[in-house]
Amino acid sequence: MVTRTLPPGVSATAEVAASSANLGPGFDSLGLAVGLYDEISVETTESGLVVEVEGEGVGQVPLDESHLVVRAIQRGLRENGIDTPGLIVRCRNRIPHSRGLGSSAAAVVGGLAAANGLAMQADSTPMSAERLVQVSSEFEGHPDNAAAAVLGGAVVSWTENRGDGPRYAAVQIRLHPAITVFAAIPQVRSSTAETRVLLPEHVSHADASFNVSRAALLIVALTERPDLLLAATEDALHQSQRAPAMPASAEYLAVLRRCGVAGVLSGAGPSVLALSTEAELPVEAAEFGSRNGFEIVRMSVGHGVTWSSGVAAKS
Amino acid sequence: MVTRTLPPGVSATAEVAASSANLGPGFDSLGLAVGLYDEISVETTESGLVVEVEGEGVGQVPLDESHLVVRAIQRGLRENGIDTPGLIVRCRNRIPHSRGLGSSAAAVVGGLAAANGLAMQADSTPMSAERLVQVSSEFEGHPDNAAAAVLGGAVVSWTENRGDGPRYAAVQIRLHPAITVFAAIPQVRSSTAETRVLLPEHVSHADASFNVSRAALLIVALTERPDLLLAATEDALHQSQRAPAMPASAEYLAVLRRCGVAGVLSGAGPSVLALSTEAELPVEAAEFGSRNGFEIVRMSVGHGVTWSSGVAAKS
Repeated sequence: MVTRTLPPGVSATAEVAASSANLGPGFDSLGLAVGLYDEISVETTESGLVVEVEGEGVGQVPLDESHLVVRAIQRGLRENGIDTPGLIVRCRNRIPHSRGLGSSAAAVVGGLAAANGLAMQADSTPMSAERLVQVSSEFEGHPDNAAAAVLGGAVVSWTENRGDGPRYAAVQIRLHPAITVFAAIPQVRSSTAETRVLLPEHVSHADASFNVSRAALLIVALTERPDLLLAATEDALHQSQRAPAMPASAEYLAVLRRCGVAGVLSGAGPSVLALSTEAELPVEAAEFGSRNGFEIVRMSVGHGVTWSSGVAAKS
Repeated sequence: MVTRTLPPGVSATAEVAASSANLGPGFDSLGLAVGLYDEISVETTESGLVVEVEGEGVGQVPLDESHLVVRAIQRGLRENGIDTPGLIVRCRNRIPHSRGLGSSAAAVVGGLAAANGLAMQADSTPMSAERLVQVSSEFEGHPDNAAAAVLGGAVVSWTENRGDGPRYAAVQIRLHPAITVFAAIPQVRSSTAETRVLLPEHVSHADASFNVSRAALLIVALTERPDLLLAATEDALHQSQRAPAMPASAEYLAVLRRCGVAGVLSGAGPSVLALSTEAELPVEAAEFGSRNGFEIVRMSVGHGVTWSSGVAAKS
């Protein structure tokens, strides 16, 4: 593939949603994009790299080539057969970090999408949604958050293991319009890498079968039968195993479910996601959240990643 | 509950479909009713029990109180608050036994439905579909075949473990109209009890997650995206584990999948189910079947159990 070099002054922006993976039984597979967006702006320059971050992660993320968004942009540029001698990258971060809301997947998908925006100005064909799912999941190691960030809405993702490495794929499902989504976001952080360690290497066949039936049921509940959400979000594979690392979140799940609300751990936690058909959480659940330091946000369903681009007028 | 005694000469009939459980990844959860029906006729008499069987199972099933259909009828009569001093039970069996096509579930569901028919003549309220799922699954120990036989079509079933014993539940899903179903039925028999022994008590978390994603995807494939059936029917929890007990079936699965057809083990085997969008199986798959003693039948989707009743005219 011929690599084209972009001139200075080409800019692109991307908007990418937060996401919640697993949704209870759908471990490493189900994902839901929620309406909280990071914005990434890039502009080509003569040379060098400037990274500016505002919002979440300021002072905590590196401002060089190792920045996740920058790595994704560079990967996206290679995918699109373009390069640039220099780059300014501006990140307006709204998705909290290390809370189980897919900020890493958003950084990757947003960076790739920004590269797609630049590709449009080089008459290069941008990566398809399918390709975005594949490349972003390679960064993540699993496609659940990445696919939700790429496609938007609710997704089922899966991995096909082939000789030449994993192929990641996903399909969007139509979320029933009566479903409302609440995120309960604690101040404490968690890292997926750390909490994944808590998961056992082996599980009973019965627990595996349990999640199989609930994951199948959850697709029915999300698309057609929200009245079945409570039964459909039960899990035996990861939530109780993670509870010791996040006792407040585990207790919040129990409170929600006792109130009849389908509470699940968001990704690897510690945020909690509540799927409901009511406009508000029950009083008991809302109060437990406030008392225990959870910020409770009613979330819209997130749209898939978008990008646009332009060329600066020559002065 | 007051028990009413039916007079002699009250008759009822039930028609109940064969079914295929699991459908690949949906172990103990997914089921599909197929258009092959057992018919059960009952008639109340002054005393005694007469059981007549024609078709499948003749000379192999007991003709007394231990007959599975009779046990189900008796259970159904108790549920409905009725009894009868004597009974003639006639079974016209078309569902082959011990092939993984749900003949036991059909016997139970058909027996319960016949009792529902009798209840109609006693002004008793027959068991609801929900109750039929519960009671029939208690016989079976799992709800997949039973729920398919009760509800018809494709079902997702699940089990809720409560203090007072398991509660079985199921919901029907709309099968995409483009899906065609083929059963490949071998002459050899298998027993679920025997083949279940081959399943390990523990599986890797990765295999559990694998089936979770495929089971979720299978609901999408069955209802909306039949193009995804091949990926969606992959399994890591039971099919390869059962292969040593049924090598021809295992090889047939491999042949079908190599031809691009979503082949799965029907229940615990040895029958094979092929889910396709074509009117015929590929030549290679059809030929492998014939050469290896499989009877290949294109199946319609089965309807839910039905019952009717009447009273003999007094002579």
